[in-house]
Amino acid sequence: MGKNSSEKGQVLRDDIGWEALAKYVKEKSPSKIFIITDENTNKLCLSIFLEKKKFEFSSETITIPVGEIYKNISTCFNVWETLSEKGADQKSLIINLGGGVVTDLGGFVASTFKRGIPFINIPTSLLAMVDASVGGKNGVDLGHIKNQIGVINLPELVVLDTAFLTTLPHEHVTSGLAEMLKHGLIHSQTYWERIKNVDFSDKVEFEKLIWDSVEIKKEIVAKDPFENNLRKTLNYGHTLGHAIESYFLENDDKPTLLHGEAVAIGMILATHISAEIVGFPQRTLNDVTETILNHFPKQTFSKNDIDTVIKLLVFDKKNRNGKVLFVLLEDIGHYKTDCEVDNSFIYKAFEYYKNF
Amino acid sequence: MGKNSSEKGQVLRDDIGWEALAKYVKEKSPSKIFIITDENTNKLCLSIFLEKKKFEFSSETITIPVGEIYKNISTCFNVWETLSEKGADQKSLIINLGGGVVTDLGGFVASTFKRGIPFINIPTSLLAMVDASVGGKNGVDLGHIKNQIGVINLPELVVLDTAFLTTLPHEHVTSGLAEMLKHGLIHSQTYWERIKNVDFSDKVEFEKLIWDSVEIKKEIVAKDPFENNLRKTLNYGHTLGHAIESYFLENDDKPTLLHGEAVAIGMILATHISAEIVGFPQRTLNDVTETILNHFPKQTFSKNDIDTVIKLLVFDKKNRNGKVLFVLLEDIGHYKTDCEVDNSFIYKAFEYYKNF
Repeated sequence: MGKNSSEKGQVLRDDIGWEALAKYVKEKSPSKIFIITDENTNKLCLSIFLEKKKFEFSSETITIPVGEIYKNISTCFNVWETLSEKGADQKSLIINLGGGVVTDLGGFVASTFKRGIPFINIPTSLLAMVDASVGGKNGVDLGHIKNQIGVINLPELVVLDTAFLTTLPHEHVTSGLAEMLKHGLIHSQTYWERIKNVDFSDKVEFEKLIWDSVEIKKEIVAKDPFENNLRKTLNYGHTLGHAIESYFLENDDKPTLLHGEAVAIGMILATHISAEIVGFPQRTLNDVTETILNHFPKQTFSKNDIDTVIKLLVFDKKNRNGKVLFVLLEDIGHYKTDCEVDNSFIYKAFEYYKNF
Repeated sequence: MGKNSSEKGQVLRDDIGWEALAKYVKEKSPSKIFIITDENTNKLCLSIFLEKKKFEFSSETITIPVGEIYKNISTCFNVWETLSEKGADQKSLIINLGGGVVTDLGGFVASTFKRGIPFINIPTSLLAMVDASVGGKNGVDLGHIKNQIGVINLPELVVLDTAFLTTLPHEHVTSGLAEMLKHGLIHSQTYWERIKNVDFSDKVEFEKLIWDSVEIKKEIVAKDPFENNLRKTLNYGHTLGHAIESYFLENDDKPTLLHGEAVAIGMILATHISAEIVGFPQRTLNDVTETILNHFPKQTFSKNDIDTVIKLLVFDKKNRNGKVLFVLLEDIGHYKTDCEVDNSFIYKAFEYYKNF
């Protein structure tokens, strides 16, 4: 885009976002537009998109199956083949319309098709809005290891519109809430207090909380784009959260957790570890745990479950030289990155979670 | 690497290259080193590498099957899984030791594993030295479409050593020769005259020709990194060459062509089209054809073969908006990019090739 146009990766909301999208399509005049959806967003969000968009341009829709288990190379392969068959070229545009699975996978497919074609993300889930929409990370899972394959590549534009949230079942809203709670914990006492007492029926305040959450992530990514230090705080609760999510996904006896549900557990555990190792205040720890358990169902973990989760930790992509490193908090908004944590603290944290 | 170290993507030869590699390993101290080879380079080149390298660091070897048909996502998947199992992390280093298939695939695997880990290329074939070593393009084929999936990402370093060429059968040497002939055609009458009369037994002059070929490609890529105009000349002969290569690969009745063998035919065809459309001198055309046919076996094409090759053209990733665009030459070293070519000229060029 020209100098007067918005720069790559910008997140724009509501009308301003839809107008920027229309301007992009007009200026770039893509050879073709492909919309990637999953079966849910194809049914529930495509009509909203078609109503909201402010440009006239025929498009083709490519639909992938619903769910994290399809965020893999095999699904990418099918999308690459479909793009090829339908004559996509380097001047084609991909619009990813969906939750994190669609934007993560669609972003990776676009970044690697013919060595990279432009893409625009329109996140339709709360989680994708407050988390996946900023920072340019994309990718897919490899076996049970999350986001093992991917690149960092910014979309041309991200359009945020809370109209899509009306299509979500409530547990998907709370899944996004986990990342918003995280933004409070790692960044600001004020935001923590506001999000802690969230009232989903107050649409105006809830929208404000969403935009502020996006702003917090934008600020963190802008300050540390290469994840040398500050950006690592975005992994708060994710080291154990990812391992728990992977383990539950692989294990037939366990329910499949939403990403936010797993991260919620991970944050309770990480906050207990923070209290043990770097002095996170005990009273605030209990407040954090109570807040999270108000929104997220408690899961049970046997000794064997915990052993396996710890084994999975070493595969987490955030680790260096085989050591498991955690982001910990000295208090809300005060972080320490690259903390080595002995397994005994992990067992104690699970014990605390169980008995709370 | 620090400011005093070489910059990313540098191509360094012989001792200077091996020393730069040793310095890189010393400075970066990778968590692990993985060497990607194919079955041939594992057998023939790994021992040369181990003898030439100037650093002490244990490494693990990952070996892929030999041949362009394995340059696909399925092979990537196996390598990603092996890296995962062997505990590769973001501080690990991948060294790609092989021809274009290994450096293209290994570069893509490294660029996408955990959203990108560092890699170094050590090309062992003439083709990989004079072509794949410069420019940062990597990727794999999708079905019969070459390099459909990939990214542009520079290796940390490229080490060139002609010691590896002694391991190559002669037809693989001529395959690389095709790209060197191309460098002459698109860039310089002087280089064309030298490479035209190449004497493989004169090692000193042949090595000079290799380095000069690398320099030509480096100069072109540096002047036009984003392939807006000049860099497109590197596709000379490749539009038809790729289509012919893909067609022969898919067709059981045809021999499998080496990349250079297909490009050699593509260059004769493109030069004939150049003579027809943009006035490439007739006498020079015959000189080009004769030179190429001195080194490369002639293939036969039925009417049906040509029809299918033309159909495949529209899938070539260099095309825009479904139009087939060619790089043509007004004379040696004088190019015109983005030339639309009517199919009738392609049929006439095949006729010329057949009757020469």
